[in-house]
Amino acid sequence: MLKPTTVKDALHSESAQDTILVHGWVRTRRDAKTFSFLELNDGSCLKNLQVIAPATLANYTDVQHLTTGASVTVRGKLVPSQGQGQKWEVTAEDVTVIGTADATYPLQKKGHTPEFLREIAHLRPRSNLFGAVFRTRSRLAFAIHRFFQERGFVYVHTPIITGSDCEGAGELFRVTTHDLANPPKREDGLIDDAKDFFARRTYLTVSGQLEAEAFACALGKVYTFGPTFRAENSNTSRHANEFWMIEPEVAFCDLQGNMDLAEEFVKALIREVRTNCAEDLELFAKFVDKELLARLDFVLERPFQRVSYTEAIELLKKSGKQFEYPVEYGTNLQSEHERYLTEVVFKCPTTVYNYPKEIKPFYMRLNDDDKTVTAMDVLVPGIGEIVGGSQREERLDVLEANMRRHGVDPKDYGWYLDLRRYGTVPHAGFGLGFERMLMFVTGVPNIRDVIPFARTPGNAAF
Amino acid sequence: MLKPTTVKDALHSESAQDTILVHGWVRTRRDAKTFSFLELNDGSCLKNLQVIAPATLANYTDVQHLTTGASVTVRGKLVPSQGQGQKWEVTAEDVTVIGTADATYPLQKKGHTPEFLREIAHLRPRSNLFGAVFRTRSRLAFAIHRFFQERGFVYVHTPIITGSDCEGAGELFRVTTHDLANPPKREDGLIDDAKDFFARRTYLTVSGQLEAEAFACALGKVYTFGPTFRAENSNTSRHANEFWMIEPEVAFCDLQGNMDLAEEFVKALIREVRTNCAEDLELFAKFVDKELLARLDFVLERPFQRVSYTEAIELLKKSGKQFEYPVEYGTNLQSEHERYLTEVVFKCPTTVYNYPKEIKPFYMRLNDDDKTVTAMDVLVPGIGEIVGGSQREERLDVLEANMRRHGVDPKDYGWYLDLRRYGTVPHAGFGLGFERMLMFVTGVPNIRDVIPFARTPGNAAF
Repeated sequence: MLKPTTVKDALHSESAQDTILVHGWVRTRRDAKTFSFLELNDGSCLKNLQVIAPATLANYTDVQHLTTGASVTVRGKLVPSQGQGQKWEVTAEDVTVIGTADATYPLQKKGHTPEFLREIAHLRPRSNLFGAVFRTRSRLAFAIHRFFQERGFVYVHTPIITGSDCEGAGELFRVTTHDLANPPKREDGLIDDAKDFFARRTYLTVSGQLEAEAFACALGKVYTFGPTFRAENSNTSRHANEFWMIEPEVAFCDLQGNMDLAEEFVKALIREVRTNCAEDLELFAKFVDKELLARLDFVLERPFQRVSYTEAIELLKKSGKQFEYPVEYGTNLQSEHERYLTEVVFKCPTTVYNYPKEIKPFYMRLNDDDKTVTAMDVLVPGIGEIVGGSQREERLDVLEANMRRHGVDPKDYGWYLDLRRYGTVPHAGFGLGFERMLMFVTGVPNIRDVIPFARTPGNAAF
Repeated sequence: MLKPTTVKDALHSESAQDTILVHGWVRTRRDAKTFSFLELNDGSCLKNLQVIAPATLANYTDVQHLTTGASVTVRGKLVPSQGQGQKWEVTAEDVTVIGTADATYPLQKKGHTPEFLREIAHLRPRSNLFGAVFRTRSRLAFAIHRFFQERGFVYVHTPIITGSDCEGAGELFRVTTHDLANPPKREDGLIDDAKDFFARRTYLTVSGQLEAEAFACALGKVYTFGPTFRAENSNTSRHANEFWMIEPEVAFCDLQGNMDLAEEFVKALIREVRTNCAEDLELFAKFVDKELLARLDFVLERPFQRVSYTEAIELLKKSGKQFEYPVEYGTNLQSEHERYLTEVVFKCPTTVYNYPKEIKPFYMRLNDDDKTVTAMDVLVPGIGEIVGGSQREERLDVLEANMRRHGVDPKDYGWYLDLRRYGTVPHAGFGLGFERMLMFVTGVPNIRDVIPFARTPGNAAF
C-alpha cells in the first residue's frame, strides 16, 4: 500500500516522484480551462502544496465544487513546478473528496478579527497565522526540554492540586468535590473541610518552586514545566488564568549562577526557534511584527546588562521621564519602568537584581546588607519581565525569621524547613512564563492568541 | 574559578584530573587510621563518588563528624581508585562542610517501609531507589516528546480547567472561586453559577482528547502530555487522583494505523529507557522486580498479538479458568481478564480491538457490523491495560446518533460537531497513562511511588 507523504516532505523532496499520496485540506481552488489548481495544506508546515487536477479526472465535477476547508486525498506525480514560489507540485491522477465544507465554513479566505477567531478556537489552527503559532509553541516547548535534558536536569512533575496557599488566598482557585448547594457542616455550623476529597482545603497550584527545591536538594539540577493558575480577575493582553510555567532549580548555585543560567536559557530558546521555525517566524515578521527578527537577533547578540535594583531606581529617577507610577525606592518596578530600562536606558535585555527584602517573598536569600534579597528579574524589550527568580534562603534561622516577618507561620512549612535542617545547600532558581516567551518569539501581542483554548475571566469555552 | 564537576561526569572521566571540585551529600562515612572514606552523591546518577579525606586536613575533626545526609564541597585530585567497584576516586585536598544532618535525619541508612517514605516525600528522592525512579521518570517524559517531535507531531496544551463534563459528573473535581460558606444565589435560591469565575461551572479535565481532535483536524498529527484528574474515591495501587497522560491524535488515520502507532510508541519508550537508564534499571531489577529486564526485552522483541474483543471473549470462556468476574460478551474486560489474555493465553503484549458499542463512549467510530466500535486497548503482562484508544467517528450523522444513544445532547458539543461539518477526515488516537508506563518500565508496584507528591483520597500533603 502506498504510504502517504506530508506536504512538508513533498515540498522538500530531493527528486520527482512517479507516485505520491497526500492528504490535506483545500485552502483555495482556482479553475483554468483544462484543469483546476488546488492549494493543499495538511498542517505539517505553513506552505501549501499545489495540485493540478486535470479535467480528465472521472470526478472532475466534484473537484470543481471543492471549496475552502474541504478535505481530500490526492494521488499523483510529484513534478517540478511550472509556476513560481514552489519547487514541486503534484499532477493529480486521482482526487478523492473526503469531507466537504459548505458556505457556512467560518474560515473563508478573508481577514477575521482576533476576537472572532477566539470564538472559533477549534477551527483557527487551520489558518496560516494560528497554524504557525501552534507549531512554534510545540517547538519552543521541546526546545525547553532539550535545553535542560542536555544539561543533566531532571524533569519533575510538581503537584497541580495543592494544600498550600503560597501567595495569598485571594488569587487561588479552590478544588473541591463538595456539593456546593449542600456542603457537609461541622457541629459549629461551619463547612467541614475535613470531609472534602483530600480531607482539607485544596487549591490549584500557583508555582511548583517549593516542591522543586525539595527535588533539587536531592537530584541536584531539576526543572518543572507544567500548568499554573491565578484567579486574578484582570483582563489584560498579558494575563491568562491558566498558563504554563518553567521553573528550574539548581543546588549549589548562587545568584550569579542563576543569572548566567537564565541568560543562557533565554538565548538558547531564541536560537532554537530561529533555526527550527524559520518559515513560521517569517510569517510573524511579515504580518504580526515587522521588528520581530531584528529584536530576536538583538537579544541573541548582546550579553544581558546587569544592574542592581538600587542602581535601576537611580537611573529611572535621573531619566527625567514622567511615569504613570512614580519611581520610589522600596516599591516594585512597574511594567513601564521595566520597559524603559531595557528599551531606552540600556537598549538591551537587562537583569535587575538585589531587591528590597520588603517587596519580595520569604524564601529569597537575605544579603549581607540586611536590606536586600537575591532576587533577579530578566527584562526584555517589548515585554518587560520575562524571568523572575532568586537564590533561596538556605539558612534555617534566617528563613524562619523571614517567614515571621512575612506573616507566614513556620509550622505550616515543616517539610520545607527540613530541606534546611538536613544537609542544606545554597540553591537558586527562576520561573519563565511559557506564554510570555512565546509572545516574545512570535510577536503576537495577546496571550489569548498563543494558547490553544485560553481561560480568562468569564471564559472557559471548549 | 574552578568549575564544579558532577559525580556522574567524574565517574565517567576519561583521565585523571589534577584538580576537581565536586558538591554533594554524604551517603556514608567510614574512618580508617589516617583517613576517612566519604561516599558522595549529588543525584546526577545512582553511583556515589568515593572521596578519601586524609587526616592531614585542617578540619579533619569536622570531617570525622560528618553523618549521612550532610552536604559538602570537595576539592581534590581525581585518581584511579585503589578499591573495587569504581574506576575513579577523589583524594581530597579540601572538604568544606556546607550543611550538617543530625541524628534526627529520617533517611538513615536502613530499610524503610514505602508507607514511611511517602510521608517524607520531600526527602525520599535522596534515597537510591527514589533517585532512580525520578531520574527514569524524567527520561521517560523526554523520550515521549522526542518520539513525537521526531515524527512531526505538534505538542498541544489542552486546557486543564474545562466547562465540559465528559465522563459523568461523579468523577470530576469542581474548580471554583465561590465562597463555599456563602456562595452567590439566584432569585430562585439556587447557587448562581453565572457568578462563578468563568461564568459557568468548571471542572478539572479528565482528558484532552476532544480538544486534541480539533488540533489534529488542522495540524495533522498532534499529541498532548499533561495532568488529568479523576475524583474517584478508590484506594488501589494503580489509581491516583492526579496523573499525567499522553494523548496522540492523528488525522487521516484508521484503527490499523492507530494500533501500529501505539505498538511503535510503547516499544520506542522501552528501548529509550533500556538505553538511557541502564544503571537505574539494574537497581530496579535487583531490588524491586527480578523479572523486570526479561519482561521489557520480551515486549521489545515480539510483535504485539492482535485479537478482536469477540475472539478474546471466546478465548477466555474456552480457557476453563474461574475468574472473579464472569466473562460475558457485552461487558468490559476486567483487569484479571486482561492479564490472563496477555500473560497466559498469548504470553505477549496484546491489542484487543472492536468492542461492543454499548460499553464504549460516543466518539468511537461505528463499524459496518453496526454492533462494534473501533476501540482498541493494548494489554501488557504484569499491568493489563496500558493504552486505550479508537478511531473516532468522523461521520456527522452517525456521531449525532451515537451521542443520542449515549444520552449526550449534540447541542452541548457544537464545536466538536463542527470538525465533522467542515472538511471532516478519518482520524484516530489513544491515551497512555504516564505513571502506568513508568510502573511498567521500573517494576515499582504502587503508583504512589512513581509520583513526586501523589494525590490520593484524603491526601494532598506538600
